[in-house]
Amino acid sequence: MKPLGPIPSGFGSMDGQLTIQGITASDLVARAGDTPCFVYSSRMLTERVAALRAAMPVRLAIHYAMKANPFAPVLAHMAALVNGIDIASAGELALAMTAGMDPAHISFAGPGKRERELEAAIRAGVTINLESEGECERAIAIGARLGMQPRLAVRVNPDFDLRGSGMRMGGGAKPFGIDQARVPDVVRRILASDAHWRGFHIFAGSQALDADAIIETQGKTLALAAELAEAVEQAPEHLNLGGGMGIPYFPGDVPVEIAKVGAALGERFASLPAILADTHFAMELGRWLVGEAGVYLTRIVDRKLSHGELYLVTDGGLHHQLAASGNFGTVIRRNYPVAIASRFDSAPAEVASVVGCLCTPLDRLADKAHLPVAEVGDLVAVFCAGAYGATASPADFLGHGKAAELLV
Amino acid sequence: MKPLGPIPSGFGSMDGQLTIQGITASDLVARAGDTPCFVYSSRMLTERVAALRAAMPVRLAIHYAMKANPFAPVLAHMAALVNGIDIASAGELALAMTAGMDPAHISFAGPGKRERELEAAIRAGVTINLESEGECERAIAIGARLGMQPRLAVRVNPDFDLRGSGMRMGGGAKPFGIDQARVPDVVRRILASDAHWRGFHIFAGSQALDADAIIETQGKTLALAAELAEAVEQAPEHLNLGGGMGIPYFPGDVPVEIAKVGAALGERFASLPAILADTHFAMELGRWLVGEAGVYLTRIVDRKLSHGELYLVTDGGLHHQLAASGNFGTVIRRNYPVAIASRFDSAPAEVASVVGCLCTPLDRLADKAHLPVAEVGDLVAVFCAGAYGATASPADFLGHGKAAELLV
Repeated sequence: MKPLGPIPSGFGSMDGQLTIQGITASDLVARAGDTPCFVYSSRMLTERVAALRAAMPVRLAIHYAMKANPFAPVLAHMAALVNGIDIASAGELALAMTAGMDPAHISFAGPGKRERELEAAIRAGVTINLESEGECERAIAIGARLGMQPRLAVRVNPDFDLRGSGMRMGGGAKPFGIDQARVPDVVRRILASDAHWRGFHIFAGSQALDADAIIETQGKTLALAAELAEAVEQAPEHLNLGGGMGIPYFPGDVPVEIAKVGAALGERFASLPAILADTHFAMELGRWLVGEAGVYLTRIVDRKLSHGELYLVTDGGLHHQLAASGNFGTVIRRNYPVAIASRFDSAPAEVASVVGCLCTPLDRLADKAHLPVAEVGDLVAVFCAGAYGATASPADFLGHGKAAELLV
Repeated sequence: MKPLGPIPSGFGSMDGQLTIQGITASDLVARAGDTPCFVYSSRMLTERVAALRAAMPVRLAIHYAMKANPFAPVLAHMAALVNGIDIASAGELALAMTAGMDPAHISFAGPGKRERELEAAIRAGVTINLESEGECERAIAIGARLGMQPRLAVRVNPDFDLRGSGMRMGGGAKPFGIDQARVPDVVRRILASDAHWRGFHIFAGSQALDADAIIETQGKTLALAAELAEAVEQAPEHLNLGGGMGIPYFPGDVPVEIAKVGAALGERFASLPAILADTHFAMELGRWLVGEAGVYLTRIVDRKLSHGELYLVTDGGLHHQLAASGNFGTVIRRNYPVAIASRFDSAPAEVASVVGCLCTPLDRLADKAHLPVAEVGDLVAVFCAGAYGATASPADFLGHGKAAELLV
């Protein structure tokens, strides 16, 4: 038997079924049209942003990194709650503007921006987080060609990284950002051009659960921003502090203590270096904002024994939930939080592996989990499906098609 | 510096560029419309099937497992060359029939077949490879309801597996197939019903490069089929021997010696157990048939140094080439064969990491590779992109969109 990850708070039950915003799993499937489907809770999204605002200093702007979940209704909901949206492609730019976000509050990061993407960003007036000196020159040249003023921030590759982060984005050689030692020259280059220098984007890692590590990194980030600004003798308008806050996926994971993070940031804001006194600060979050608000629902289509082991075979799988199958950036496979949604109140009574419908041994949603007895027709819920689910999975693999998505 | 995988044979060069069927990489990109793109060679597909037929006994039918590459022009090309197509979903069924394959030569495997998929398969008259006793009952019931005769083969979960296979599909508890000890009862159940028993599907593993391991497994497969047929006192019409033959991806990998495999199979066919004397035999291959015939072309959009390490940033990435990035079923990341397509004749002169345009450290197409000096605008080729590329990758991730695909 292998343990399951912790089910996030905020879900309920009725008639023995899992409920999301008071709606049973079977009703949600009926609304989505069929299994498999992703269901996102607008209430949980709203409450999540509110909880973050309550914990953080009023001065801190909240940005949504839409790569976590670009489903149009989710994006529109988030656009109304946050202060800005961070995009990673021209495709995301179009979606963010369609969702109603003012381009003045959109920023664009990503190491491989194409000429036409830079042009689209400059025309729209969004902030470009520069990833290299070459990209800086290209953006300035495109602005000159268009007769438009590019809004350019410098993405810094800091010498530090975020301790305990699931993905290191700083510290040593990286494809992301400009090495901190080179940053003053790049800012001077922007200041000497016709472009508008917006400030810095400093992102040292993501998916960390330890508040102390996040607090330490935010301190280093503020200090580095001040040091770089002093070097160019110019205050940055804007500082994107990155995100870094993860969510619990696996047994033993605990949520980030956001009150602690917010209190520490408040203290730092109260004693800022003079050069950052008028800077706008933003935190950029994707997974933390939307990850726990989504559930993937899939139906059991077969129940079989093989050499004494029980398999619950579902109509979903890694084509929608690559990360839950353990095949996206993980070295050791561990179980996500998974439950029998249609028997949510029942006690665990047998050990079963929940597998997907794909004809590959990689397609496993829960390995040797302790679950209530489930039959063909029962619904399985995979939690923490609100971020890096539908779009971060190979939906075309084996021709089963995309999962439905539903915001309630 | 880390070594690159071996470039498959069959590619050429002209004017310093990589050519596929005599067409330069830049011309191929122009035909595809833009980078990134997948280019598949019809000539290499044709030659591959011909080489296999020349090596294998005439009696052996060749089936194409279309999950490896379902691009419609590739599928139509393959449908005209092979004896059958193996599908894994109702979606693939529709594509296979559109490609012109006679449903009598289509077989459907996969552990999570839905009711409507079973119904579509029975209506079309394709062979269903049964994955469980429950699925057997459902198929018989659907046939009775429709007044149609299901064509049912039993997928066997053998007690042995394929030594050295990249993916084990047999040996011990598995979601795939019916444990061999239970198979005789399932065949008797089919024979006692109104369904048509087609035979067996025995698949013990895939992506093996060692001819001796494949030969040994084929011997065990034939012996098991004979044993199971003797147990039910009925000769199987059809035996799908599985595939198992892999392709070289990584440094040190060598191609399967197909002449050796074919000779051994020929000997076995010459001395078959009496109960298999009239059986039709098929080998089911996906990756081996199409993998080496495809190349992924992507353009360098940035060249940057970070802490002394060189990065070539491309407009492609893991959203099209998840496996090449090392994030699909691999524990230790190794380099696929990668080259600078627009400087294909140039000698390696520097060490560079080729990364994709996605804003994640997972997006790496070649790690610390020894490559010719390449600049922004140059084309990078990732080889072995003909199988499990476009559809086995998260194309919607970060909003860059799908890659173009082109069959020449």
